[in-house]
Amino acid sequence: MTDTVTGAPQAAPHSALSPSDELARWLELFDAALTRGDVQAVTSLFAADCHWRDLISFTWNLKTVEGHPGVHDLLDATLATTRPANWALEGQASQAGGVTEGWFTFETAVARGRGYARLKDGLCWTLLTTLYELKGFEEKKGRNRIKGAEHGVQKGRQNWTERRAQEEAELGISVQPYVLVIGGGQGGIGLGARLKRLGVPALVIDKLPRPGDQWRSRYKSLCLHDPVWYDHMPYLPFPDDWPVFCPKDKIGDWLEMYTKVMELNYWSSTECVKAKYDEDAKEWEVQVIRDGQPLVLRPKQVVFALGMSGVANVPQIEGAETFKGIQHHSSKHPGGDAFRGKKAIVLGANNSAHDICADLWENGADVTMLQRSSTHIVRSDSLMDLALGGLYSEQALEKGITTDMADLLFASVPFRIMHTFHIPVYEEIQKRDADLYDRLRKAGFMLDFGDDGSGLFMKYLRRGSGYYIDVGACDLVANGDVKLKSGVDIARITEHSVILSDGTELEADLIVYATGYGSMNGWVERLVSPEMAAKVGKCWGLGSDTTKDPGPWEGELRNMWKPTQQEALWFHGGNLHQSRHYSRYLALQLKARMEGLDTPVYGLQEVHHTA
Amino acid sequence: MTDTVTGAPQAAPHSALSPSDELARWLELFDAALTRGDVQAVTSLFAADCHWRDLISFTWNLKTVEGHPGVHDLLDATLATTRPANWALEGQASQAGGVTEGWFTFETAVARGRGYARLKDGLCWTLLTTLYELKGFEEKKGRNRIKGAEHGVQKGRQNWTERRAQEEAELGISVQPYVLVIGGGQGGIGLGARLKRLGVPALVIDKLPRPGDQWRSRYKSLCLHDPVWYDHMPYLPFPDDWPVFCPKDKIGDWLEMYTKVMELNYWSSTECVKAKYDEDAKEWEVQVIRDGQPLVLRPKQVVFALGMSGVANVPQIEGAETFKGIQHHSSKHPGGDAFRGKKAIVLGANNSAHDICADLWENGADVTMLQRSSTHIVRSDSLMDLALGGLYSEQALEKGITTDMADLLFASVPFRIMHTFHIPVYEEIQKRDADLYDRLRKAGFMLDFGDDGSGLFMKYLRRGSGYYIDVGACDLVANGDVKLKSGVDIARITEHSVILSDGTELEADLIVYATGYGSMNGWVERLVSPEMAAKVGKCWGLGSDTTKDPGPWEGELRNMWKPTQQEALWFHGGNLHQSRHYSRYLALQLKARMEGLDTPVYGLQEVHHTA
Repeated sequence: MTDTVTGAPQAAPHSALSPSDELARWLELFDAALTRGDVQAVTSLFAADCHWRDLISFTWNLKTVEGHPGVHDLLDATLATTRPANWALEGQASQAGGVTEGWFTFETAVARGRGYARLKDGLCWTLLTTLYELKGFEEKKGRNRIKGAEHGVQKGRQNWTERRAQEEAELGISVQPYVLVIGGGQGGIGLGARLKRLGVPALVIDKLPRPGDQWRSRYKSLCLHDPVWYDHMPYLPFPDDWPVFCPKDKIGDWLEMYTKVMELNYWSSTECVKAKYDEDAKEWEVQVIRDGQPLVLRPKQVVFALGMSGVANVPQIEGAETFKGIQHHSSKHPGGDAFRGKKAIVLGANNSAHDICADLWENGADVTMLQRSSTHIVRSDSLMDLALGGLYSEQALEKGITTDMADLLFASVPFRIMHTFHIPVYEEIQKRDADLYDRLRKAGFMLDFGDDGSGLFMKYLRRGSGYYIDVGACDLVANGDVKLKSGVDIARITEHSVILSDGTELEADLIVYATGYGSMNGWVERLVSPEMAAKVGKCWGLGSDTTKDPGPWEGELRNMWKPTQQEALWFHGGNLHQSRHYSRYLALQLKARMEGLDTPVYGLQEVHHTA
Repeated sequence: MTDTVTGAPQAAPHSALSPSDELARWLELFDAALTRGDVQAVTSLFAADCHWRDLISFTWNLKTVEGHPGVHDLLDATLATTRPANWALEGQASQAGGVTEGWFTFETAVARGRGYARLKDGLCWTLLTTLYELKGFEEKKGRNRIKGAEHGVQKGRQNWTERRAQEEAELGISVQPYVLVIGGGQGGIGLGARLKRLGVPALVIDKLPRPGDQWRSRYKSLCLHDPVWYDHMPYLPFPDDWPVFCPKDKIGDWLEMYTKVMELNYWSSTECVKAKYDEDAKEWEVQVIRDGQPLVLRPKQVVFALGMSGVANVPQIEGAETFKGIQHHSSKHPGGDAFRGKKAIVLGANNSAHDICADLWENGADVTMLQRSSTHIVRSDSLMDLALGGLYSEQALEKGITTDMADLLFASVPFRIMHTFHIPVYEEIQKRDADLYDRLRKAGFMLDFGDDGSGLFMKYLRRGSGYYIDVGACDLVANGDVKLKSGVDIARITEHSVILSDGTELEADLIVYATGYGSMNGWVERLVSPEMAAKVGKCWGLGSDTTKDPGPWEGELRNMWKPTQQEALWFHGGNLHQSRHYSRYLALQLKARMEGLDTPVYGLQEVHHTA
């Protein structure tokens, strides 16, 4: 078929072909045009409103380009060095609503890739290309696993335990890690596991005493808000009797076990206090305090894995210093046990605020929630059934959609049009849970569904805030058990009360500031320098020009899991799903650099906002 | 088709049918005859030389019957209460060498079952029936998993950690376990996990300080002798980069993690010192020492899970008490580090003897192995490739043979004819490794391949001894690095030497008795009474009338994982594969008893040997 290709797309007679044949034929044309280096021909295989999302296979970046100009530009810059080949349909394609879609595999000069395409009228509408394996640096798994035992005999050999003990004794002391991961929560641990498998010497540090303490230290009734199918760590899925919503201490114990089983080099009770990058030596100098002792680490690469959130936002309020009760940010809140019979004020109305209000109420406190601006509410069950269930559920597994496949399918929807997939879901949710929403409105609660009605996940991507996944607290607000004051802020604080912006005075023994977090580059400001924080700019958000996510459009989350304006500085974080999936690409980028592969970055993001 | 059944088998025109149709048709006839309660008709669907192996689905026993009389007798005794139904082909059957074989599912009055059948000339040659799930008592997994979070709010509720802490504080103290598992190695832990999933209150005790210490405490260079695919624990397979032969400390750490993740109630540093059964109260009284403190437990059921081996055999040798050096059984041997430059005598030539000789040699000792009788040697690689690879390997996984399927296929070969499957494999191994065997013979080593040439696994089943899986030590014996004296025993021991049965005197600083173990009922003799040990009789072995496995033929391993002559007393053990697979049936038998289901035992084994 390739000899009939003239450079203009051979619009497939798609009605006559099976979906698999149609996609296979498109891949054949695509392959041929790429192999010829005919950028114009490749471009013309795309629809005018196309989106091509590449996860490090062409661009050594997480990058989405749009339309013919975008595709053309990407190829101009990357085709010669990428040298893609062997595009082949994987499994069977499907067709619905005029869209033909399916999986494929391909290779580049240095790697193996997998992707997902959607065709409309024979032309590519959305394309996802991802790199999953570097040639010559494959993970030692399956048929390639190590033998373990050294059969034969040999005097004085080390066994596994001795080798592990030596590695642990040396790394960070006499042998420097290639990568330092600052933050040992789910993100740092999952990334550490991927780096370990790839043979990248990495050290994960965390200030808490044990892996998993990030979860254990939270309030008592906390369970994961996302369901189990969405939450697996890389390589070692939870057993099939794991609860749908994992209790915090159980996930904490799992992370501690995982760290050990994956043989991570993990330093607990270790806090980073200062870091600077030596541009000449291409090396970081990182000051840490380990078990109370200062120590300097000199990694080549540093990953900030301190969550998707940055430094806590604590509002400066007149009179706060005179308050005789207890006041702290939600991140410092220890749980409600100590506040029985006390008057508690929670400033904020998002996830943390609701969880803390419910916990305080369960423990017998008198609780008032102060809602400053509207909040998106979605019931956990509805979210599971209507928003996640297609990809992450028992039903999905029974249809053969593995976690890896679900992650790629999720990634295959370009951010630019993702809201159009979500809006109908949230319209359905509004109908289904109309009663809850009515009751909340009647209680004075200010509701929203995002600027464009696209709901939770888009809010999460755009601003990382502004919502509550209801696991029960909404009832307390609706029925008045948790008192609500909405449309107000705290104007002033006295010794024993808060004065609201509407003049109301509320007695208070406890004030919790559930007021969110700054951008992750706040950590860079604190640990490296304000200059470097400004140089890399704001993290997270898409540039959607919606509330708290100013434009211009970025196409990808700012600075996450991809090269930043600062060489050797990386950000990792997000929920368990994102940490699991994107740690793959971050680990491969680090591995490629360690091995000295050429990694020309296409479309390095520009900085439009510093915080 | 059922209305054409007259009671005589409708010999399927099997050449005309696909294998799946042939097996489906046989199942239909079988189902119809069973449903009619027509034992004669059912029996006539079997070949004259048939074997029916049932794992607790008809017999509440592990039981193999043979020939028409065996099938007839089993059905006479069990059909009315079992009420089997809904026999259905699962997947596709296959055909080779005149045998049609495949999977099926079925139900009984109280349970769901799965099995595997082999037909010859339209009649059943081998039938495996197994119970995997009790109706109404299914494991809470997959779609039935618990929610975990209690959505909604509730004052004063316990969280997961508090519930676990309460369970741990109470079980064995104020709340008695239904099952006490004595021995917390791989067997006890895996069984504990199954009981936990089934909601059976169980306590696992072990005398060592931490789960996994059973492995950690062994000699330094030890790795599992079986490959990774054969060694998974129930429910949580090893990650796919796990080494082929897992180092001892790594499996130790895994077991410790597994115990925690599976939420077992596991008491470390706890030794059973005495047990007795109260036949009236139907309850055990078990004295244990926990962390130095005596305590009495009162479980309804006791499982001895102290390995497949019993109490160590230490030979009584004249003059042993005068020896000035160190002497101990192989099970007490700490590793070779302390014996550099010392003269070591190892009595025995099986697995432990070889491993200990190699370890001593690696540590610079002068080592002599004393071989009393012939040993079966098989190279680890050959065993993997030729004996296990078809069921337990990457290749098997790629063919879709999961670990569970492999376990059932393994179980589907009746013990009576298993050797006929193995003899050709070991003929092939003898050719492949002829050079090694020649070199060993030249060094004076006495070799065998089992009484009938059926090799390692049959020796393991028949006597649990008499072999070495070569992972390197054979070279040391063949080339003289480890000195060999064969056909001798120790006649006498002096202060600094051993005198052999041929009169030779060898200087010795260390004597290791790699002289094996007694039957597991030795533990009953020690912990309960000699009377009860004699009542339950010898454990392990098939009654094959080969060396160290006296007849009569038993059909199944004696006393393992099935009811014994002593009510409420069970034995569990074996390698990782057996522990994984048979713990399923043992756990289900215990669950059924706890729930008060009727569990009439067909064919309870008679005792022919007491040790």
